[in-house]
Amino acid sequence: MALVTLTTDFGDSDHYVACMKGVILQIAPDARIVDVSHRVQRHDVVHGAFVLRQAFEYFPRDSIHVAVVDPGVGTTRRLLACHYAGQTVLAPDNGLVSLIHRDFPLHDIRSIENPMLYRREVSRTFHGRDILAPVAGHLAGGAPLAAVGPPIAQLEILNLPRPVILPDGGVEGQVVYHDVYGNLSSNISRRELDHVLATRPSAEVYVGPLRVGPIRRTYSDVDPGEIIALMGSSGCVEVAINQGSAAQRLRAGPGTSVIVR
Amino acid sequence: MALVTLTTDFGDSDHYVACMKGVILQIAPDARIVDVSHRVQRHDVVHGAFVLRQAFEYFPRDSIHVAVVDPGVGTTRRLLACHYAGQTVLAPDNGLVSLIHRDFPLHDIRSIENPMLYRREVSRTFHGRDILAPVAGHLAGGAPLAAVGPPIAQLEILNLPRPVILPDGGVEGQVVYHDVYGNLSSNISRRELDHVLATRPSAEVYVGPLRVGPIRRTYSDVDPGEIIALMGSSGCVEVAINQGSAAQRLRAGPGTSVIVR
Amino acid sequence: MALVTLTTDFGDSDHYVACMKGVILQIAPDARIVDVSHRVQRHDVVHGAFVLRQAFEYFPRDSIHVAVVDPGVGTTRRLLACHYAGQTVLAPDNGLVSLIHRDFPLHDIRSIENPMLYRREVSRTFHGRDILAPVAGHLAGGAPLAAVGPPIAQLEILNLPRPVILPDGGVEGQVVYHDVYGNLSSNISRRELDHVLATRPSAEVYVGPLRVGPIRRTYSDVDPGEIIALMGSSGCVEVAINQGSAAQRLRAGPGTSVIVR
Repeated sequence: MALVTLTTDFGDSDHYVACMKGVILQIAPDARIVDVSHRVQRHDVVHGAFVLRQAFEYFPRDSIHVAVVDPGVGTTRRLLACHYAGQTVLAPDNGLVSLIHRDFPLHDIRSIENPMLYRREVSRTFHGRDILAPVAGHLAGGAPLAAVGPPIAQLEILNLPRPVILPDGGVEGQVVYHDVYGNLSSNISRRELDHVLATRPSAEVYVGPLRVGPIRRTYSDVDPGEIIALMGSSGCVEVAINQGSAAQRLRAGPGTSVIVR
Repeated sequence: MALVTLTTDFGDSDHYVACMKGVILQIAPDARIVDVSHRVQRHDVVHGAFVLRQAFEYFPRDSIHVAVVDPGVGTTRRLLACHYAGQTVLAPDNGLVSLIHRDFPLHDIRSIENPMLYRREVSRTFHGRDILAPVAGHLAGGAPLAAVGPPIAQLEILNLPRPVILPDGGVEGQVVYHDVYGNLSSNISRRELDHVLATRPSAEVYVGPLRVGPIRRTYSDVDPGEIIALMGSSGCVEVAINQGSAAQRLRAGPGTSVIVR
Repeated sequence: MALVTLTTDFGDSDHYVACMKGVILQIAPDARIVDVSHRVQRHDVVHGAFVLRQAFEYFPRDSIHVAVVDPGVGTTRRLLACHYAGQTVLAPDNGLVSLIHRDFPLHDIRSIENPMLYRREVSRTFHGRDILAPVAGHLAGGAPLAAVGPPIAQLEILNLPRPVILPDGGVEGQVVYHDVYGNLSSNISRRELDHVLATRPSAEVYVGPLRVGPIRRTYSDVDPGEIIALMGSSGCVEVAINQGSAAQRLRAGPGTSVIVR
């Protein structure tokens, strides 16, 4: 019983997501469908790539992930199908899978070009329903990945900043995501943090010009309303306000500097 | 393994939708439940009818669609069960199924009147949970449609405007829906559009007094922020702003005139 | 095929809920997952307890309910697993299950302490993903409840007000919930209402200082925009505005006095 996940920026009030599910189930009646999120910020490929990357890691082998954040729908941008360790990802070739690719190198990357796997009529504005959903249905039903189209050598990579080691032995990264709570996730991972702490065990975290303090363990290590830095559940340094929104209070978001020194 | 879809205006913060799912699964433990939308505008039967109509077309035979936008709950309005080509729709008789009926003529239309299929206690304010969900469960478990109640001759039809051919050979329709992106779907279908283009190949689209231009192929045929007319994924003329909201910018919505001439 | 429900305050834009689902499905590939709500007000344990209690009643035996509204994550608060009539509830011990416990006395209450059932790495901020989801997966796969940890004698109970009989034979309760429609649910049940009506058949409902009128049957017993009191679908006295929001109009919410006299 194949598992198909959906990640889109379609929102949850319209019929779009349901149309995709219906198409998948027409082709693969036994497929099980799990929503990752349909509230990716509209056309925000980086946001979608982050959500998809975070969820990807926790899904079983044989999962098929369909992601649609696709401002270029109907243009010549390709649609991709690719594998990692038994999981399959289908998405436009606009960087949406590139954070998965960074951490879990995708292989057998193919361009979806086989109209036999599409719906009979393909609209120019809804390839999620007319191409990706039926392709997912066929893969869920047992079609091999090679059926979708030819292998390709390269996929579009998002050009995201990486943390850098500072001359003083600290590390500077950026906020890459803020969740619905306003918690700020940075791109500074455990490894980079340990690098700093090895020589500077009392290093503290700064967001922009604001000194947050040392890395603590969990939100309630500070009083409600107080700001805190800790290792977030995504495995990177996170800045939060206990029972409040750091994004709002600090007016911070993707791109804001985060320094540990 | 029967497939049951749900379309409601219950929102997604309360327990109402989950109660319906629990009731269905108590009766038909193998049923698979797919959400179409629970964010139909509250009590907006036209909105619900449009969402349901759009999704309906893409679902497999044997799907059972339960729709609840029901401002008249607890009054004498009937609850309907009806068939089209193997699919079943359950809904209050307030026009909610009438857009399906317009395009996919429903047959074996019945009034749900058999309390043997209801929950033992039926509240006066939540027939979705107490009548429609258990009836869907019983149908999913194999009960015949005839078990729900007697056939009826007529169902409530929404009195929606239809496009009209203008004296100059153009066609005038209306916006019937705007999605979460602010894209404006009209009721002017491919057929009516082709009728105009046959004699006026350079015809252009107008929304209210605004000239949008000719029908193009996909959003990115214009620059971001520019307005565009195209065939939407629902098969009708759509007016959109590439990466923006036409509904907001044009202050347009259901009822706004759309002309191709 | 075990049924697992999820009730959280995680919202539906981020990856958190999907991570939990992936973890459950990695362990119990056949589990069926149903969302109750992910829009519990952030950190609002009372709200979560109410939503969970309302949904609980309608689910089949063998359902496993996972609830995460957990401002104390990472502290010494316990995580609970408990039974009622074949259903299982997993939640932090912060009162979240106490409204179920009030109405459906939970038994075999255990403290989750067996790391063999956790994910290998347990973050300090996301026990939903790292502890509760894998425990639910193992229970769905057939592990006995006793495997999770030792029995405990007591669980945290929310100290919610109960309706009181007034000297004049009326009853005074409170609003305990308002739904997305703005309907105000009180804690005055059928039993208390009948007690009043037995001696005062013409008793009327008051919200704060406002006289609403007698108990009616359904919303449309009054004109649109008019206020009404009725037995709500949760089995308690409800105050609503037909096709409007009582919560907004009356500026009422949890705690507001509701009197029937």
